Amino acid sequence: MIYVIGIGPGSKELMTMQCIEAIKDSEVIVGYKTYINLITDLIEDKEVVQNGMRQEIDRCKEAVEIAKTGKKVAVISSGDAGIYGMAGLILELTSKEEENIDVKVIPGVTASIGAAAILGAPIMHDFCHISLSDLLTPWDVIEKRLRLAAEADFVICLYNPRSKGRSEHLAKAFEIMGEFKNGSTPVGIVKDVGREKEEKFVCTFDTMDFDRVDMTTMVVIGNKSTFIHDDLMITPRGYTV
Amino acid sequence: MIYVIGIGPGSKELMTMQCIEAIKDSEVIVGYKTYINLITDLIEDKEVVQNGMRQEIDRCKEAVEIAKTGKKVAVISSGDAGIYGMAGLILELTSKEEENIDVKVIPGVTASIGAAAILGAPIMHDFCHISLSDLLTPWDVIEKRLRLAAEADFVICLYNPRSKGRSEHLAKAFEIMGEFKNGSTPVGIVKDVGREKEEKFVCTFDTMDFDRVDMTTMVVIGNKSTFIHDDLMITPRGYTV
Repeated sequence: MIYVIGIGPGSKELMTMQCIEAIKDSEVIVGYKTYINLITDLIEDKEVVQNGMRQEIDRCKEAVEIAKTGKKVAVISSGDAGIYGMAGLILELTSKEEENIDVKVIPGVTASIGAAAILGAPIMHDFCHISLSDLLTPWDVIEKRLRLAAEADFVICLYNPRSKGRSEHLAKAFEIMGEFKNGSTPVGIVKDVGREKEEKFVCTFDTMDFDRVDMTTMVVIGNKSTFIHDDLMITPRGYTV
Repeated sequence: MIYVIGIGPGSKELMTMQCIEAIKDSEVIVGYKTYINLITDLIEDKEVVQNGMRQEIDRCKEAVEIAKTGKKVAVISSGDAGIYGMAGLILELTSKEEENIDVKVIPGVTASIGAAAILGAPIMHDFCHISLSDLLTPWDVIEKRLRLAAEADFVICLYNPRSKGRSEHLAKAFEIMGEFKNGSTPVGIVKDVGREKEEKFVCTFDTMDFDRVDMTTMVVIGNKSTFIHDDLMITPRGYTV
């Protein structure tokens, strides 16, 4: 039995009841060490298999092997396990196994939703998620999605917006979206959602400061109706109030 | 003080700890009666203000008035309050008030995330949300977003896919997306996520049965890589496994 669990942005308050129950019910906890560190108080006497970044395949293969011994395994993702998390990889692996392995995906609060609650209400209307990481996706596909999403006037949430290895991606993304996004479009930036170091900034498309952004940051670009009030970012649904 | 709360798809297990705490901390609960019915065991001796569909503005105005008397009010949305929920309306209203009213948005598990966990891992790659309701959004804007989202090869989650008043919207949406979505593209349909009557169907774009869909249904259309295995819908992130 494998629980693929999204623990939300990080704090226990944003975990679902089902997430906490599934962790408690598990005998072995498998995950990226940074995420394991967020749930130490829930896993005190459990067996833990943790490793570093970019070792997802090894981790998930190990989880499958452990499940085959009959143990209950929890595979931990931050946010939601089904959004750039481990649910896909686990199901891809178990679908190749001859024996049937039960998999239960436990949904969680993804980073865009956590960030939106801090920014106000930026994703109240149609929106999309685009990951700027080209480790697994060709950059030209990412560029195409950025352009068409901006043309469609979606609110756009950028996952994996920037890392040391590719600091120029975010500026390039803004250049592409700038064909359709007005300079005064509100942009919300939230670092470390729900964690101790949480920080929030609201600016506009033209005054965007790329240096504020790292891999733990969520960037939300508004649509044509989004406005800033005090330090809140609000996208109207369309009610006349 | 107003808590704008997303209670998730409906079952208590998918509520966050913060959601439950905020409901407990509130003196008055305001919401659409169907959602209030989902949390009756949490609000036993609290004052409740509930009304019917399409009365959101009245409800939210009343919540603001109650908050002005100094009471703690919880405004309840299903799913996440910031995604087609009440967060935007409450903030639009409070931003027009002269006195400062504290608003705290409590994030929740939105319908697409809840449905995805039941379908397998359909939204593992870039995706978008589009609401097919034209009550507040011109239909030509919705059509444009459908076309560009399909061209961008997003996984597409349709909110408010169908109602008695506009049963033809969903078929029309499929016609538009069909310019770019292949007939063999997997489509996942989940009714009443997390509730007693929950039902799930997986089919393809060409074999889509529109009559299965009503307003409590989430429709998820895959991207070019999405595949069906057993009755699961899986969108690979791009790992080589």
